[in-house]
Formats: sequence, C-alpha cells, structure tokens
Amino acid sequence: MSSSDAGVAGAVNRNRLWGRLMALAEIGATPNGGVHRFALSEEEIPARDLLRRWGLDLGLQPFTDDAANLFLRLEGSEPDLPPLLVGSHIDTQPTGGKFDGAYGVLAAFEAVEAMIDSGHRPKRSVEVVAWMNEEGSRFAPGMMGSAVFTGKRSMREIERVVDEAGVSVREALDRLLAADRDIPRRPFGFPVAGFLEAHIEQGVLLEQHGLPVGVVTGIQGKKTFRVEVTGEESHAGTSQRRQRRDALVSAVDIIRALEDAIWDEEDTVRFTIGRLVVKPNAPSVVPSSVVFAIDLRHYEAEVVETLGARIPEICEAARGKCDVVARQLLHDDPVLFPEPVRQRLRAAADRAGRPHTDLLSPAGHDARYLSGVCPTGMIFIPCKDGISHNEAESITPADAEAGAAVLAEAIVEWAEAG
Amino acid sequence: MSSSDAGVAGAVNRNRLWGRLMALAEIGATPNGGVHRFALSEEEIPARDLLRRWGLDLGLQPFTDDAANLFLRLEGSEPDLPPLLVGSHIDTQPTGGKFDGAYGVLAAFEAVEAMIDSGHRPKRSVEVVAWMNEEGSRFAPGMMGSAVFTGKRSMREIERVVDEAGVSVREALDRLLAADRDIPRRPFGFPVAGFLEAHIEQGVLLEQHGLPVGVVTGIQGKKTFRVEVTGEESHAGTSQRRQRRDALVSAVDIIRALEDAIWDEEDTVRFTIGRLVVKPNAPSVVPSSVVFAIDLRHYEAEVVETLGARIPEICEAARGKCDVVARQLLHDDPVLFPEPVRQRLRAAADRAGRPHTDLLSPAGHDARYLSGVCPTGMIFIPCKDGISHNEAESITPADAEAGAAVLAEAIVEWAEAG
Repeated sequence: MSSSDAGVAGAVNRNRLWGRLMALAEIGATPNGGVHRFALSEEEIPARDLLRRWGLDLGLQPFTDDAANLFLRLEGSEPDLPPLLVGSHIDTQPTGGKFDGAYGVLAAFEAVEAMIDSGHRPKRSVEVVAWMNEEGSRFAPGMMGSAVFTGKRSMREIERVVDEAGVSVREALDRLLAADRDIPRRPFGFPVAGFLEAHIEQGVLLEQHGLPVGVVTGIQGKKTFRVEVTGEESHAGTSQRRQRRDALVSAVDIIRALEDAIWDEEDTVRFTIGRLVVKPNAPSVVPSSVVFAIDLRHYEAEVVETLGARIPEICEAARGKCDVVARQLLHDDPVLFPEPVRQRLRAAADRAGRPHTDLLSPAGHDARYLSGVCPTGMIFIPCKDGISHNEAESITPADAEAGAAVLAEAIVEWAEAG
Repeated sequence: MSSSDAGVAGAVNRNRLWGRLMALAEIGATPNGGVHRFALSEEEIPARDLLRRWGLDLGLQPFTDDAANLFLRLEGSEPDLPPLLVGSHIDTQPTGGKFDGAYGVLAAFEAVEAMIDSGHRPKRSVEVVAWMNEEGSRFAPGMMGSAVFTGKRSMREIERVVDEAGVSVREALDRLLAADRDIPRRPFGFPVAGFLEAHIEQGVLLEQHGLPVGVVTGIQGKKTFRVEVTGEESHAGTSQRRQRRDALVSAVDIIRALEDAIWDEEDTVRFTIGRLVVKPNAPSVVPSSVVFAIDLRHYEAEVVETLGARIPEICEAARGKCDVVARQLLHDDPVLFPEPVRQRLRAAADRAGRPHTDLLSPAGHDARYLSGVCPTGMIFIPCKDGISHNEAESITPADAEAGAAVLAEAIVEWAEAG
C-alpha cells in the first residue's frame, strides 16, 4: 500500500494546481490583485462553469442542488457507498484574495486528479464540492449552502434574505441555476461518509513554525450581539452636560466596561467591537442613539456561554443615564473535529512527507456544519503574515502543493477503506 | 410716534404667521412632525419659491447672490440708504424641527407685512433674508452663506466642500441657482445698515422665567476639531487582543479622557462629540480607523482657548497603541452684540408690551458673522423644554407673535430713523 500512497502524493502537480488557482482568480479579479466574487453573482456563473468543464475533462460528473452547491463526482467502484466530500467555497469578500475558499476547492480537485493519474479507482465515490455563499458578504450570514445541505437552516429561511440592492437569495439562485440547467439537481440529505476541507490558515502559527500543514483540531465557538444605547438628542451648544442623555458617552463607558470585564490574561478570548453607528451623527447634536456589534469567540463552550451571559449585565451596569438593550444574534458552539479523522489527516501528512502540527481554527468554515452530519476534518496551509479577507492574501506554490498532497493521501486511504 | 408704533405691533397677525410656519414645514416634513430640509437640497427649491411668491404678493423684490442667500426687499423711500437686513435661515438638521431658522425668516416676514398693513413706508429699505446653509448638516461647517456674504470665507473655499454622496457645494449651488434664474443676482459686500435675527432659544431660560422674549447679549465662542485615530485592520476571530491596534478601543479611551479632562463643576463648558465614524465598520473586522468631531463652546474667549489648546495633548496621552491626530477645524471668538442695538431691541419690546430679559446665546447663528460687518442684534423666543435640532421642537403661537411684534417695532424705529 505504501507504494501507491507515495504515488498519489507524488502525482500532485504543483504547476497544474497553481495554474488553476490563477485561472479561477481571473474571474472577478480586482486591480489590486485581489478577487471580488460574491455568492450567486454574475461572476459566479463563469467560475462554476470553469470548475464544471475541468471536471468533465477528468470524467467527473457534475451535480448541484436547490441551494446551488456544486459537486464534481468521481464515481467509486462501489457507487452505492455514501461519498466522501472534499472541498470549500469559491465566493469571496468584497475585496478578498485569491485563496480563501478557492484553495480548498482546487486542492481537492488536484488531489482527485492525482488519484486518477496514479491509477487509483476508489471503492467509495469522492466528490469535490464548492459550498454556496460561505462568506456572507452579499447575503448574510454566510455558510448558507452548507447550512441548508446539513439541515441547519431551511431553504425557506435563506430564500428570503436580500442583498443591499434588494435582490433576494431566491432571485439570485434562480438566475444562477438557470445557467446550470444542464447539471442534474440532487436532493439534500443523502448519506455522506465524511467531509474534508483544506483552507489557508488566516493566522500566523504555521508561518512562525515554518510548517506547511496544520491538522485542525476544532473551530472556536462564537456569539454575536447587537447592543443599542438610547439617549436623547439635544443641542451641542445649549444643553448642559449634567442634563444630557448622551448615547455616545454611555456607549463609551459600556465599551470600556466590556473590554475590561472580558479581558483574560492568557489572551485566548476574542472580543471585538467592529461595527458602531451613531445617530444622528451630526457634529453639533448630542447623539440620541449608538448601535454596536459584539463578536465574541473562544474554543471552550463554557467560556463562550459564561462571558456571553454576562454581557447584558455589564452593559446595564455601565449605561449611565441612557437605556441599553443587548440582544444575542448568533450562537455557534465550538466544534471539536473527531480524533479518528484528525488521526487520518496526521497519518496522511506523514505518508506525504509533510511536517505538520495540530492547531485550532479561530475562523468559521463550512466544516462547522458538515461536522454535525458526518465525520469531518480540516487541514490548513500557511498564508503570508496571516493576512486574509484582503486583496494582499498570499500563499506559496510549495505550500499549496503540500496541502493537496496531504488531501490526496487522506482521500485515497479513506475512499479505498470503503 | 407712539401711536404708529403701537400700530405696527398690533398689526402683527398671529394666525397668518403660524399659517406660514406650518406651510413651510410641509416642505421636507418627516413622519414624526419634524423637517428634513438640507441646504441646497431638492426640498430647498420649493421652499425658496414659496418665500419668493409670498414676497411678490406683498410687493417685495427678490434678490439672490452667488452663495444663494435669498433677500426679499421692501424698498424704502430713500432707496440709496444701506438696507436693514432681518432674517435667519430655512435649512434644517437631518431630523430637525419646524422652527429653528424658519421662525426667524417668517417672523421677519410677518414684521414687514405688519409694517405695510399699518401704513409704514420706511426711509431705509428693509430686506427679509434667508442665509444659505446655517446648519452645516449636509455641507460642513455651517453658516456658509453669511460667512461668504461677510467675507469671512471665500466662494472658492466653500465650493469645494462635498457632502457624503460626493456632491460639491458648487454642483448643488448650480442646481439651486438654475431654479432661481428669474431672480436678480447681486454682488457680495454692499453696505448694510444693520442685521436683526429672531430665533428660538434652544434653551430653557425664557420658559423657566415665563418670558416671551429675550434680548441676546452675545454668542458663545466655539472651536471644532477633527480627531483621527488610526490602528490596523485585523480578523476578529484570529488576532490576539494584545497584538491588536484597535482604533475603536483607542478612540473610546481618548473620548473618556477628554470627557473627564474638560469637565467643569459649574457646567458652563459645552463639550460634545456628536459625530463618529468607524472603518471598515464590519462586525468581524478589528477597526483600522475612527474619526470623530469635537464641538467645544464657552462664553469666555480664554476658556475656549485654554481648553482647545489641551485637546491634542489629551488625545495623545490616551491613544494607546494607535496613532492620533487632532486637527482644529474652526475657531470663533465669543461675540458681544453692541449695547446700542440691544437697547433698541429692549425699547422695541417695551413698546410692543412684551416682558423681556437679557440672555446669552449658547448656539451659533448667522448673526455671528453679520456682527463683524454691521450693527447686529438678536432676540429669542421660548421653545418647549429647550428642545431643538429635534423633530419635537415646539413653540406657541403667542410667543411666535410676540417675537414678530418686537421685530416689527425695532424695524420701524430703525428703518424710519434713516
């Protein structure tokens, strides 16, 4: 078995993979070297078509579903066995890079091509997948396709979501699926043997350790809140400060209190206020309203739960003369990928001769939802300076190859195990 | 002379004045009973046209100038004498009320109509004026029309100012003046005998004392600053808080430090941060930039100077890991209106039989700039609970009449004095 394993990692073709990454990045390319390719956009139609054509050249059968997830299937010798899915997404942030998502889809594609080139015909079918709308930049929240596929959300729920121009997911889906009309559409909920996802790290740990591959142990838990501070509008030149109910002054005190209370010496808690809107936001009007968003993440469910539960009381204690309402918008438990899958990935990396380490994923991925319905695992490759969601996103061809080689080893082993 | 004076105050028509206030408030009316009528906006075109038509019905000759200030002239029997200007502005805050500015213009108009009705033909011409862009909500800073009229600012300087949509004052002026093309345009800088402005108090002193009229002794000094805090964008899920340069966290600390340092026990200093903008303002991105506006006012020049000088150092001391630049945008010394004009206004109030008191204006008004070029005075009428820059702004018809009666008495005396 070792010769064929060495064969599959060795059959991964760095230039072919890199060429596909660059070709896909041309669709929605921005002048600064990034990519603007929103979910269900005009740019996604040629991007999906390119993937489909590459797949057909290789004998992969395309499928889609009502949520426009795209599957390219390498039929196994025992086609009734549930397939192994491998992939990520092809949508980007508004000024995103070439690799977030796209790398995971094309590394899976390269791994499958390497399997075919090295003469492997797995028992279990293997499907390269591109999940619809992971980023949520156009239609929020993201991870929409994987959420519907795994039953976490319903089609009814996502169809109603509208973008800033007022276009609904339903309308955008109809347009995209019309372009896909020669691709067979499958129902959701068929049995799946497992899911593997390769992704850029979006952090600096692999780069700092000089390692090409990380085996992801889990994904942080996350809560988000919307905090609304309500005061009273008054004239900056006339109203006495003791009489004011200044929503910005109260918001400042609330944010300082939150930053202090949620500080941890080990610096493992991620607490961020990224969005804040003042009303009426005029230089000579005492603000009547401030609305801000809290993003809270940690690897331990209990920490997320305990800190999240304290947020309303911290806001209340610091509100001064204004009113405050802190409302939880989202809760995602931390995910721990199952040890047997992690072990498969470590062993695959060893067989491929790629040094690796375990690490946690601070960001969410489609693997979060897949882990609810099948054994799921992820690997990371380094990205320069940890920069992501940015046109400057950068990886090396050697690291891209390493990730695909590990995927190829893992797929062969898992799909042949039947 | 006493019989004719009693005549003019008695000729002021409460219902006519109130009807005009309500009619003007319909242009840009908001669902909550306020007014949204930005300077140089689509709403200003019909508002100016309404004033012009009312004026023509009364035999007033309309004029405008390159800054779109609007004048309605009652020609005096000695038309070469410099005119007496009386008025205020018709633009509003984004969610403004019916009376801030509009009252001053329509009270002046009512006073002129009362003069005509009671058979007065003054020696000196009297012009009702609506200065362009007093509020500065759309194009900052405000008092733009009176600043250009008095030579405080140049057309070149104001033309370049852009609104949030990127429209320049030049473009907006061209659009407005095109609609005014049948109104003769006069040059700036012609001699003016004096300026009188009636306004709502935007404070509670008159209401607390149960008085219908205040004679304004002066206007607070004012400084404004633009503070820019610059950090570094990073991923909310991945970046450690110790490594972050979070512009919002630094801005919060800077604002708290400013609020503390600029507090005075007597509560005579007006210190406000009314506008604050976060970038990129996305829930899962650590902010890279916060820009906020400081509005600082006091009656004593020395207090404004001393506190203003400390602002950059307070920002610097509290900036944490981010960079900060505090730049002064505007400095206006406190204004003291000349005692002879105040005396004219007190005597006019006495003749009109309206009890009055002297008081200071905490807010800026176009009278600030006019006071630099001609004898200038102001009167205030009460506004409910001192609420202004707010849709809930409210005055009584009786107080509206009182202010117009005082203006009418003052205008007759001043304009007939020649």
